[in-house]
Amino acid sequence: MKITTLEEAFIHELSDIYSAEKQLTKALPKMAKAATNPKLAEGFTSHLEETEGQIARIDQLVEKCDIKLKRIKCKAMEGLIEEGDEVIKEIEEGSVRDAMLIAAAQKVEHYEIASYGTLVEIAKQLGWKDAAKLLEATLAEEKATDEKLNFVAVSEVNNEALANAA
Amino acid sequence: MKITTLEEAFIHELSDIYSAEKQLTKALPKMAKAATNPKLAEGFTSHLEETEGQIARIDQLVEKCDIKLKRIKCKAMEGLIEEGDEVIKEIEEGSVRDAMLIAAAQKVEHYEIASYGTLVEIAKQLGWKDAAKLLEATLAEEKATDEKLNFVAVSEVNNEALANAA
Repeated sequence: MKITTLEEAFIHELSDIYSAEKQLTKALPKMAKAATNPKLAEGFTSHLEETEGQIARIDQLVEKCDIKLKRIKCKAMEGLIEEGDEVIKEIEEGSVRDAMLIAAAQKVEHYEIASYGTLVEIAKQLGWKDAAKLLEATLAEEKATDEKLNFVAVSEVNNEALANAA
Repeated sequence: MKITTLEEAFIHELSDIYSAEKQLTKALPKMAKAATNPKLAEGFTSHLEETEGQIARIDQLVEKCDIKLKRIKCKAMEGLIEEGDEVIKEIEEGSVRDAMLIAAAQKVEHYEIASYGTLVEIAKQLGWKDAAKLLEATLAEEKATDEKLNFVAVSEVNNEALANAA
């Protein structure tokens, strides 16, 4: 049975990001452990808590809108996390690895920004105001996390990485 | 041999996005063919040309900076393209599919925005001004493509998709 309605497409997209967030909760502790810069490590740890809150928000939405998520595995997030694993494996511990952990994490954030951006638009289109509000709250958090990662990169890690290389 | 310097990390990241862009040139014609809205189909086709120009820019950068790219396959882009393929397979042709093709394409753009954003920062850090300029030009194009996709979604496709569902 092919998808034909916007509601079904919304549920598919929501199921995808639900899988993505679940996968991320397993990756973030590894990223925190692999980071050297304390602000970065702490950032990963606090984003883990935030991610758990975002999953709870989807659970809430599912209940409110009385929808049923599909059991799918988000393949894009699988690839993104694999790239993060490669950073840990292929780069020596220290500031260069930190810089590339930030890069990997920003790709994850951007995936989520694109996905929640779509979900907010569709929820609005469908007139699902409560759902749109919940999704907008998460979208704002993902954008803020991307900004924070950028700040740690530009203000600390990239300079340290350059110094190490000299 | 593990990566220890920012230059090596830059080359790794550049090799990754080079693979991503190459993969994208094969996916975009399929997305154009699968789209119903003519503006969207044309958008995918014109982004194919743009992508080829972005690959040429990386070739130019590689020559200027006298670096050698690694042969790696970007796994995140592999997953992102797989998601685009699923949209085509699982959603009936028409405006709902168009809406989700846009969503898939925006995820691709966001991946590229994150990657080129990192590359620009590192190039600047390394004092590679010409490289930074080339990468900034591509970054601006990716951001503009994301905006254009958003515009087609909000101004046309999402409304059509909603009408179809009613």
